[in-house]
Amino acid sequence: MSDKYDVIVIGGGISGLSAAKLLHESGLSVVVLEARDRVGGRTHTIRNKETKYVDVGGAYVGPTQNRLLRMAKELGIETYKVNVDGILIQCDKGKTNKFRGALPTAYNPLIYLDYNNFMRTMDQWGSEIPADAPWKAPHAVEWDRISMEQFINKVCWTSTARRFAELFVNLVITAETHQVSTLWFLWYVKLCGGTVRVFSTDNGGQGKYVISAVPPILSTKIHFKPDLPAVRNQLIQRLPMGSVIKCMVYYKEAFWRKKGYCACMMIEDEDKPIGFTLDDTKPDGSVPAIIGFILSRKATALSNLSKEERKKKICESYAKVLGTDEALHPVHYEEKDWSKEQYSGGCYTAYFPPGIMTQFGSAIRQPVGKIYFAGTETATEWSGYMEGAIQAGERAAREVMFKMGLIAHDEIWKDEPESKDVPAIPITTTFLERNLPSAQGFLRFIGYSFIFSTSAALGYFAMKKGYVTLK
Amino acid sequence: MSDKYDVIVIGGGISGLSAAKLLHESGLSVVVLEARDRVGGRTHTIRNKETKYVDVGGAYVGPTQNRLLRMAKELGIETYKVNVDGILIQCDKGKTNKFRGALPTAYNPLIYLDYNNFMRTMDQWGSEIPADAPWKAPHAVEWDRISMEQFINKVCWTSTARRFAELFVNLVITAETHQVSTLWFLWYVKLCGGTVRVFSTDNGGQGKYVISAVPPILSTKIHFKPDLPAVRNQLIQRLPMGSVIKCMVYYKEAFWRKKGYCACMMIEDEDKPIGFTLDDTKPDGSVPAIIGFILSRKATALSNLSKEERKKKICESYAKVLGTDEALHPVHYEEKDWSKEQYSGGCYTAYFPPGIMTQFGSAIRQPVGKIYFAGTETATEWSGYMEGAIQAGERAAREVMFKMGLIAHDEIWKDEPESKDVPAIPITTTFLERNLPSAQGFLRFIGYSFIFSTSAALGYFAMKKGYVTLK
Repeated sequence: MSDKYDVIVIGGGISGLSAAKLLHESGLSVVVLEARDRVGGRTHTIRNKETKYVDVGGAYVGPTQNRLLRMAKELGIETYKVNVDGILIQCDKGKTNKFRGALPTAYNPLIYLDYNNFMRTMDQWGSEIPADAPWKAPHAVEWDRISMEQFINKVCWTSTARRFAELFVNLVITAETHQVSTLWFLWYVKLCGGTVRVFSTDNGGQGKYVISAVPPILSTKIHFKPDLPAVRNQLIQRLPMGSVIKCMVYYKEAFWRKKGYCACMMIEDEDKPIGFTLDDTKPDGSVPAIIGFILSRKATALSNLSKEERKKKICESYAKVLGTDEALHPVHYEEKDWSKEQYSGGCYTAYFPPGIMTQFGSAIRQPVGKIYFAGTETATEWSGYMEGAIQAGERAAREVMFKMGLIAHDEIWKDEPESKDVPAIPITTTFLERNLPSAQGFLRFIGYSFIFSTSAALGYFAMKKGYVTLK
Repeated sequence: MSDKYDVIVIGGGISGLSAAKLLHESGLSVVVLEARDRVGGRTHTIRNKETKYVDVGGAYVGPTQNRLLRMAKELGIETYKVNVDGILIQCDKGKTNKFRGALPTAYNPLIYLDYNNFMRTMDQWGSEIPADAPWKAPHAVEWDRISMEQFINKVCWTSTARRFAELFVNLVITAETHQVSTLWFLWYVKLCGGTVRVFSTDNGGQGKYVISAVPPILSTKIHFKPDLPAVRNQLIQRLPMGSVIKCMVYYKEAFWRKKGYCACMMIEDEDKPIGFTLDDTKPDGSVPAIIGFILSRKATALSNLSKEERKKKICESYAKVLGTDEALHPVHYEEKDWSKEQYSGGCYTAYFPPGIMTQFGSAIRQPVGKIYFAGTETATEWSGYMEGAIQAGERAAREVMFKMGLIAHDEIWKDEPESKDVPAIPITTTFLERNLPSAQGFLRFIGYSFIFSTSAALGYFAMKKGYVTLK
């Protein structure tokens, strides 16, 4: 097979499909290998009569995710705004705090300053970290040694701020604060508004190529001949995937709206399964639903329950937080435990435990022979997101095109023009707001505002062009 | 193939071969699948005229490793004592401290007490950790959140003790102090003198079985149908293998002996590649050699050098530490970078980053359908060592035999009678010595005193019996 194509792409997720699309459009012959019986990777749209359609994987797109917006437009996919009009709810120590705007009103000025300082410190430290080579940050070794738990304990003075910071980390990267490197986390967060630096690549060579567009840990499933170099062979053992169960509860009506709620809940209590929710009702008001995320330790602890048991626990906690028994009577339930998926490994993305970034990180997208590396984990903008997947896929495609002599070296890394439909107006306007780990901050990190179903569309495109080979 | 055998063993290392041997001797039909063109896994004996023979992987056996001693005796393998008669050397901050017995004489009483307290605290904490279920320790969650770096910083007062403690961790588990969980490390160390607790196993079922006898991370190379349960699917992503290059330098004569040295060096300086050495001269005095370990971060940093460059760096540092240019003129050099090995992943063993033991650890040897788990990582005595590999392999074999109705449940876990040839006399005799992280302590953790070549012998045995299928 290796002789029949110019490029073999391993993995039919967003990144692999983006690479294949670009290569195909550039006149190269390409085949995508996919282990599952579907494309889309960590995005997956389910369609049935109860839900019409629902994205059980990646779903949200927001400002500055310009590649994703471009791709959506090109493929004719509509987006719609998430409903966040109404009262937001934050739940901590069993107490429910309602608020509009940026900050739970229950908070005193001390907590407020503490929050503010936490976010500001993250931004300050983050500004020292190069997007394309975080292991070269001036304090890389020092920050890579400490976990985010250590960082939070160092920066936050109040236990309220600490608990909020913990949920923030759980939500953003579906792992525990004590499991992840501070250097990596600050880099990851920075990239959600980060800038591109061009990464230098070696010259030379001609011939047939491979783009690996699977998460690093999944490349252990491949048997390499000859063996990989030591650093890459060990790097790919050290980047586990996060743990999350995405849960959609469907109701006869959007009862929360009667109370003025927008169904956006941030829940910190240990006894409640879900950490963060959003309204998932369709834009026309049909199929009322709440989408929620079971995060990290809770995803592991609850993975052995039955689907029914999880549904029950979730509805009970919604009833408590929203203060109404209506939450106890769903008409339908969908869920996706990504930790069970052999060919994803978990979701949303890989995390770096302490000490890995500086010892092994520089190998993350270093080509090995004729193998180039895509996948959102190798991105330098929005790594971990669909946007990063496209950036990485297209960059890897262009690395190959450069090697084939089709483009110049400085064309490998490309800035994306800003989307005209979704310009990057600042999310918030005042200094204080800009620095708050509020609902706005949370939403920023799930790339909020718009929802769509890329996987289905990209998959359809790929199928039609005939370059995907399913298992 | 699955119908032709009672049991399929995946992996022809010590653990898989031990399982196969026991199953075969019990009258069952068994096949061992091995991805490489040799058996032995992380043990490997090279033979050539320059070295006669040399173990480039696991090599040492000591008191209380009774299964390994039994196996060696049964297979007629001779052991011999490592030469530790003479002056030991400890090198820190470029200064060379010579000493006999337990403690570098350069050390002042404060450092002495600090050392002592470090080892004593490890033992005290370790005594609370159940060998068979470390995640159930009373402080499991708390200790699992902190890295060994945090533990060392908390317990050690002097920077000298901290540096020594760091080398101790590097040597024992070939990873960095900030990369590993304190809960796991204390458990690991405890097992080097630990006791067995019987682990409960479920009842039921009949039929054909699989024993997975590869390190957890290598089981990601297998494509499972159906998918593994969520917790196991994620556990196996979270246990990276350590990093070590084993380096043997051969000389015309054992020049160190002329100076009264035994060639045992503990080297803490960052600019020197090797962390720990031993005399590797053959017991009859022939083939004079020093064996050294490039550990953890240094193994990664030096993996891209050429063999010649590594040899040069090593000889230069030996010359400096031993104070003689004779070290600069080796007659031969052998090395093995285990981080490059696709089908080992690294050496000596897997480590647990912070937060993994308590969130995922209980799945480590929980059978999945008809798959049972061997491999030294699943052992409850000497996990990470050849002894643990045998314990785990034989236990997994007996789990299968129990399921087949051939043995009783309480026969699955078996204590091993003490070797009569190598009884477990206390290594040191006074309270103070017993608690010192001295050369003696170091030696204890590499299972010192005797050397042999199990892999070759077990492999020969396996080949003869015809139950190994090489790739």
